[in-house]
Amino acid sequence: MTMEGFRVLDEKSLREYIKATPSLASKLGNEVDNFKIKEVGDGNLNFVYIVISPSGSIVIKQAIPYVRCIGESWPMTKERSYFEATALKRQHGLSPKHVPEVYHFDRTMSLIGMRYIEPPHIILRKGLIAGVEYPLLAEHMAEFMANTLFYTSLLYLTTTQHKSAVAEFCGNVELCRLTEQVVFSDPYRISEFNRWTSPYLDTDAEAVRNDQILKLEVAELKSKFCEKTQALIHGDLHTDGHVDQGNDRKTYKAWIMDTIADTWNLFYKKFTSLWDIHKEGPGEAYLHEIYNDLELRELVKQKYMMDLFHDSLGFAAAKMIRRIVGVAHVEDFESISDLVKRSDCERRALEFAKNLMKKRRNFNTIADVIAVAK
Amino acid sequence: MTMEGFRVLDEKSLREYIKATPSLASKLGNEVDNFKIKEVGDGNLNFVYIVISPSGSIVIKQAIPYVRCIGESWPMTKERSYFEATALKRQHGLSPKHVPEVYHFDRTMSLIGMRYIEPPHIILRKGLIAGVEYPLLAEHMAEFMANTLFYTSLLYLTTTQHKSAVAEFCGNVELCRLTEQVVFSDPYRISEFNRWTSPYLDTDAEAVRNDQILKLEVAELKSKFCEKTQALIHGDLHTDGHVDQGNDRKTYKAWIMDTIADTWNLFYKKFTSLWDIHKEGPGEAYLHEIYNDLELRELVKQKYMMDLFHDSLGFAAAKMIRRIVGVAHVEDFESISDLVKRSDCERRALEFAKNLMKKRRNFNTIADVIAVAK
Repeated sequence: MTMEGFRVLDEKSLREYIKATPSLASKLGNEVDNFKIKEVGDGNLNFVYIVISPSGSIVIKQAIPYVRCIGESWPMTKERSYFEATALKRQHGLSPKHVPEVYHFDRTMSLIGMRYIEPPHIILRKGLIAGVEYPLLAEHMAEFMANTLFYTSLLYLTTTQHKSAVAEFCGNVELCRLTEQVVFSDPYRISEFNRWTSPYLDTDAEAVRNDQILKLEVAELKSKFCEKTQALIHGDLHTDGHVDQGNDRKTYKAWIMDTIADTWNLFYKKFTSLWDIHKEGPGEAYLHEIYNDLELRELVKQKYMMDLFHDSLGFAAAKMIRRIVGVAHVEDFESISDLVKRSDCERRALEFAKNLMKKRRNFNTIADVIAVAK
Repeated sequence: MTMEGFRVLDEKSLREYIKATPSLASKLGNEVDNFKIKEVGDGNLNFVYIVISPSGSIVIKQAIPYVRCIGESWPMTKERSYFEATALKRQHGLSPKHVPEVYHFDRTMSLIGMRYIEPPHIILRKGLIAGVEYPLLAEHMAEFMANTLFYTSLLYLTTTQHKSAVAEFCGNVELCRLTEQVVFSDPYRISEFNRWTSPYLDTDAEAVRNDQILKLEVAELKSKFCEKTQALIHGDLHTDGHVDQGNDRKTYKAWIMDTIADTWNLFYKKFTSLWDIHKEGPGEAYLHEIYNDLELRELVKQKYMMDLFHDSLGFAAAKMIRRIVGVAHVEDFESISDLVKRSDCERRALEFAKNLMKKRRNFNTIADVIAVAK
């Protein structure tokens, strides 16, 4: 497969590619005849390789021109790779401790070379399924979110910088459209791609498709996703960690709930701190001359953060629903082999999500949400 | 003044320009030695010429690289002309009966050649000040708004088309910034550009700058103006016709009120009709498969239109406020030479606007607004 110089790499051709690319070879200590390659992509879209030499390691991620988990019947521009690399670099710049560094980007090949986070690190989702507690998780998540969202919003940027960034990322339309379809549309209609734990959830999936109020709410969220250019969001930041496996790991459940609460509360604190620090900065949303009154500043912050909170609950609910009755599911549920047990967990998560989406404006604090989740 | 081929034209050089430009000369019946030129720009930004020959007429509009009503101390890209021409052409395509045709656009010269709407046509504002009733005004305004807004929104466009249009118009950042400043910022802070009927409105202008709730509300409107990409709006569609001159022209007042009500109600009808007609069309906001239930469709429409209504009231209020205590005023008030009388009218309009902005979500119909205005 060749498209203006583009080829899908396999292990052999990737080996040659790395040898010929100094920015990658150097990260392997230039041991170009002594490294191992392992394909590990379990995602829905891309090929991912871990490359290890005795003196270094990298990850190579290549986008292909279709949706990997569906096949060539669902084309998807490989240009998404450019936007992923651009976003990664920008987010690394804003939150370097929590975003892997990009070493190399090849637009023609849609190929990103980036830092490999070595063992004992594992993917968070797997740790959560295994019941691992991460004492710094909330802190780190909050830090990443506060930094990347604040500095790409109009609270920090001028409208000139902001419009230029919006124009650039408008080019990422195909991946946005994929999200629009699989998150905001497919779960609410009959689609060949939808699947669920059948037959146990057949009536539940149908209930989602017939829930008028839910469809009214998801339209509002979709409109925000399509039309509102508030900040550069991470389009795939989720762990679904609030869903337990139906066992009685009481302590772990409590830790997960605490972590969710801490994540929001720390994010609130860090985000509004950045706002305070930069209140006389370049950001053009709330000019200091107009919003310098202390009481007014508090009012403005509370309103902004409450809107953000309600949006977050709505989008979290949409993601939960789509992971249960849409095309792409999550290991948290999929790893439960007993289908009755699995569908029971899924049903409870689904009901919670529907409730959350419809009633999100009634929640004032994350503690209110946790209370219902419990 | 020369900038990469750009020159500010005067009557003499404009004459040569027209002679040398077939698309303009042809509209004058090619009578290139027999036409009259008159500069008529009373706007804040551009030079406008009316050009008339015995067998035809055109309007020439040239943007200059600064804000005309302020002077060269306030630079303003002449590229705005490109976006004006682009928007005009697009809007003419969507509502040809209510938008003048663009005959010629010269990006280097920032020059638009367009249809001249000949006498007895006058600028609407002047007609309203003179007390002229226009029986078709509401119908025509509603038609223009429904056509241009519906067809540039996600109710008609795919997200691919929509994002491409958003990216393009992001380039119009300088004129957007000017609006941000003079509409959403300056009236709420001390600014060298602000002016008002002094000393009569001194305390009123100060009250605007100290009104916390008003500043909270205007921030929300500014955020929508900067971040929400709902449709291609006409950035200068206003008549302020609802403000009378403090005389007792009862019938005319009633006509103005009726026209405001009719404009919204007809717009509502036309806009939702287009939505019905195109409900199975390319628009991706409300996919027919998801929103095919009749009751749900009604619910969705009501919600969308109510949000649009409240936005419209908010932006109308912001425009009223800025025309009274901001940089650029309107002839409706300026033509009242008795300053006590003028400031009395202005104060009443200002109080109405403040109330409208703060309470806009409490209005359910345009009749409710009219009742308060009366």
